[in-house]
Amino acid sequence: MRVALGLEYDGRFFEGWQTQPSGRTVQDHLQEAIFKFTGEKVNAVCAGRTDAKVHASGQVVHIDTECERNDFSWVRGLNSYLEPTVAVRWAQYVPESFHARFSAVSRTYQYWISNEPVRSPLLAGRTGWVFRPLDEKKMQEGADYLLGEHDFSSFRAAGCQSKTPIKTVNFIEVERRGRFIKVELQANAFLYHMVRNIVGCLVYIGSGARNPEWMAEVLAAKKREKAAPTFFPSGLYLTGVGYPEEFKLPQYGASPF
Amino acid sequence: MRVALGLEYDGRFFEGWQTQPSGRTVQDHLQEAIFKFTGEKVNAVCAGRTDAKVHASGQVVHIDTECERNDFSWVRGLNSYLEPTVAVRWAQYVPESFHARFSAVSRTYQYWISNEPVRSPLLAGRTGWVFRPLDEKKMQEGADYLLGEHDFSSFRAAGCQSKTPIKTVNFIEVERRGRFIKVELQANAFLYHMVRNIVGCLVYIGSGARNPEWMAEVLAAKKREKAAPTFFPSGLYLTGVGYPEEFKLPQYGASPF
Repeated sequence: MRVALGLEYDGRFFEGWQTQPSGRTVQDHLQEAIFKFTGEKVNAVCAGRTDAKVHASGQVVHIDTECERNDFSWVRGLNSYLEPTVAVRWAQYVPESFHARFSAVSRTYQYWISNEPVRSPLLAGRTGWVFRPLDEKKMQEGADYLLGEHDFSSFRAAGCQSKTPIKTVNFIEVERRGRFIKVELQANAFLYHMVRNIVGCLVYIGSGARNPEWMAEVLAAKKREKAAPTFFPSGLYLTGVGYPEEFKLPQYGASPF
Repeated sequence: MRVALGLEYDGRFFEGWQTQPSGRTVQDHLQEAIFKFTGEKVNAVCAGRTDAKVHASGQVVHIDTECERNDFSWVRGLNSYLEPTVAVRWAQYVPESFHARFSAVSRTYQYWISNEPVRSPLLAGRTGWVFRPLDEKKMQEGADYLLGEHDFSSFRAAGCQSKTPIKTVNFIEVERRGRFIKVELQANAFLYHMVRNIVGCLVYIGSGARNPEWMAEVLAAKKREKAAPTFFPSGLYLTGVGYPEEFKLPQYGASPF
């Protein structure tokens, strides 16, 4: 049987999603909890492999198991073996045709920037921090150049395993929320570091170092060196994964702010 | 000269405010940063000594110094020596008549409870968690018995150094905010563990284990054993300290949520 799990974690406390010899990754912790709960050694497959320090409220994972429990028993059972900084938020049996990664039709990320003169300790590790005032309207103007299907090679980090740099961005919304700038992005899929590279460019635009039209130049260049440096991992949250309606899975996790 | 400092910290990463041989307290870190910045060994006096794991966005501290800098230099200078989980949010020279603790006329705390069936890793260490549904209206009814001047001995922990158990509560507001219950309290001063003991009682009332009138009985008993157990430190924030208007200090820090 196949079970889909909705996962939330505070990325500060893990070395990313993917299993490492250190054992300090989300995958390692989850698989260990599953072993304690079911006695089975499984390979957990996720929708979006997050980097070290990157958070998730809406990560989706699937595992194959012989274990039959009701959905909430999976949640409660696994959470009793997981540290406070990671938890299963929901569990649901799915058909064998479901694959957490290959069935996904969209990924949604939120990037939260705290935009104030003095850094906030209660936001440390939870937002990116920019002390220069940011113009969210200009950021949105720049973001709009990225909508639709494009070759996103300019925003692709070395080591990216995607077969193609062509992705479709459904939306990018830049919004001021009090002391925060919230950037929400949805695409069919993202290249390695793509969100953080886009946010780096948006911050250049928001602070006035570049104008919004510059985003079009960066995109057209298809060269990584044209874009801004990769922005901090701390403000990035994988907040949702979309699947075809037939699977009836929750599409979004809780908003991080 | 005397300088007042507004302090914010994530209590998870410190063993409370007050200096300890371990050196892992907010006071130790702040005094070390001041030494690096000014070369002076000072004793930092705070408005409210917070326990281990308790947070602050509006802690106020004073120090005596020979050092003359502009206000923002104090902020920037000290923050460059402080870890990401603690920061000075503002600094202001004050007359010698000012005392962070004795001049304070009120302290404001917020307690945040996440009230949902499954725990949230992104809220770990940042809220108290209650999985049973809470009735915020009943909690408010119970809280209202505590308004005004009373002997709060029932809510006073052993080891309390206050001269008197008689305190004046200006307001207690219980409010539902989506998945959260927010409890905001202001009094002239609080006894040791008083807020956490009050919140423990409010949770008993909110979950239906006690009725709102029980709070009046607890208060009247003046016996610690009548009240609920001390609630978790993780959801507690010192958010503000009030001083006479003449000092012109900011009264509140940023809201933690």
